[in-house]
Amino acid sequence: MKDTSRAALPGKVFLIGSGPGDPDLLTVKALRLIQTADVVVFDRLVSPEIMALIPETTRCIDVGKLPKCHKLTQEEINALLVDLAGQGLQVARLKGGDPLIFGRGSEEAAELRDAGISVEYVPGITAAQGAASSTGIALTHRGLATGVRYVTGHRARDADLELDWKSLANAQTTLVVYMGVANIAEISSQLIGHGMPADLPVLAIASATTPRELRVIGQLDDIVQKVAGLPESVPVLFVIGHVVSLYPAAVLQAALTCQGAGMDAYA
Amino acid sequence: MKDTSRAALPGKVFLIGSGPGDPDLLTVKALRLIQTADVVVFDRLVSPEIMALIPETTRCIDVGKLPKCHKLTQEEINALLVDLAGQGLQVARLKGGDPLIFGRGSEEAAELRDAGISVEYVPGITAAQGAASSTGIALTHRGLATGVRYVTGHRARDADLELDWKSLANAQTTLVVYMGVANIAEISSQLIGHGMPADLPVLAIASATTPRELRVIGQLDDIVQKVAGLPESVPVLFVIGHVVSLYPAAVLQAALTCQGAGMDAYA
Repeated sequence: MKDTSRAALPGKVFLIGSGPGDPDLLTVKALRLIQTADVVVFDRLVSPEIMALIPETTRCIDVGKLPKCHKLTQEEINALLVDLAGQGLQVARLKGGDPLIFGRGSEEAAELRDAGISVEYVPGITAAQGAASSTGIALTHRGLATGVRYVTGHRARDADLELDWKSLANAQTTLVVYMGVANIAEISSQLIGHGMPADLPVLAIASATTPRELRVIGQLDDIVQKVAGLPESVPVLFVIGHVVSLYPAAVLQAALTCQGAGMDAYA
Repeated sequence: MKDTSRAALPGKVFLIGSGPGDPDLLTVKALRLIQTADVVVFDRLVSPEIMALIPETTRCIDVGKLPKCHKLTQEEINALLVDLAGQGLQVARLKGGDPLIFGRGSEEAAELRDAGISVEYVPGITAAQGAASSTGIALTHRGLATGVRYVTGHRARDADLELDWKSLANAQTTLVVYMGVANIAEISSQLIGHGMPADLPVLAIASATTPRELRVIGQLDDIVQKVAGLPESVPVLFVIGHVVSLYPAAVLQAALTCQGAGMDAYA
């Protein structure tokens, strides 16, 4: 039931991470907020399973951006959020993953604050963590990695990839590349060129933790060909490093224990 | 209510991340599992607020490890989990943060699988994300960072820190150091020695997202002195990088909008 005194409250925007896709991996806070907000402003990376948890009567606005096909520009999204909160509404701004890791949540927050609007962050399980829990590839397994690093493989128009290859080419650190499918050829060849072993294992994964999960296992020198068959619209995450060698054991175990519920849906 | 047919099921271990501490940041799945498990095996990094959500009748086993004062060795924890699941119990193995990021979850899982026990991972919001959402320091704010990197600053006995300083000294990548308070003097001097600016801002934060949250803001060349006053037993996380400069604006905003509820509890 919605709070009827709501109109008396000032508007507010909650910048919420919806996690990797499985609604069970929403935080308790995120679930409560999307079920009680006046309006939900969502991205294309929010899974349909999560959207289904929003009450049917709640207004939902799709600002999802597909590559090369922006529905709303970032400036238009910012203006929309300011407008909605300015009307006194409680706004759930729902994003895939975590709003503060490649989510541009802090850019939206800065605009909102400049407009005098209250903002609160609600973190989400990021796609890398979803991929890890789903595949058993521990991002920092001792002896295989001393740390983990998240970078974006997205390039703004014709700009160069803003990546420091020398520093990235460190086989002791698990490298997770977000939004990198369009540039994986350059990424893998630069990493090899800067000293990473050509047979370093790579996981490419899309829609982890959802029934649409797709997994491809390869290595630095063949991952480009291996992901060529993936549909262009799916957001692919790459996990590069020795920890990916944990995968086969985990899969065998999953196949033994899942009792037919799940693995068949996975590639 | 517990499932009375439970005894007929084989035992299973859920390796669960409890997140940074705020019970509202548990995942929906983690909350359900700790409320329905037969037994909860927990670490010292699980907050008391989260422990309070476990039913009073559930058996809880504290295997928490304090620095230099292990309650149970890792081998003893592994044996305990095998034993409990071997009895046919549904075991919630509850850890701070995410079990696959510096959580040694995959080591426990490997032992369990070797013993023929079913294992499932449940990711949690990691401490870095808790710190980011609580302070407004976006880990990958565009223009201030092109990525984020998590490393551990813990050193096994007298071993060297397993850190590749040359690669780490990259001011375009936000560096998050877990378990680094004992070695922050070496970490900061090595980073400066490898070319990071001495005035690069640093956040030290403990118990983020809980009422016990402590925050210290400094820079690479003075953070050692600034954290000297923190109690030795609190787990301190360091966030190092230009994104930390987002902090003052966020704090001012929080002070303006929190209406007295919360900021006073923070240092």
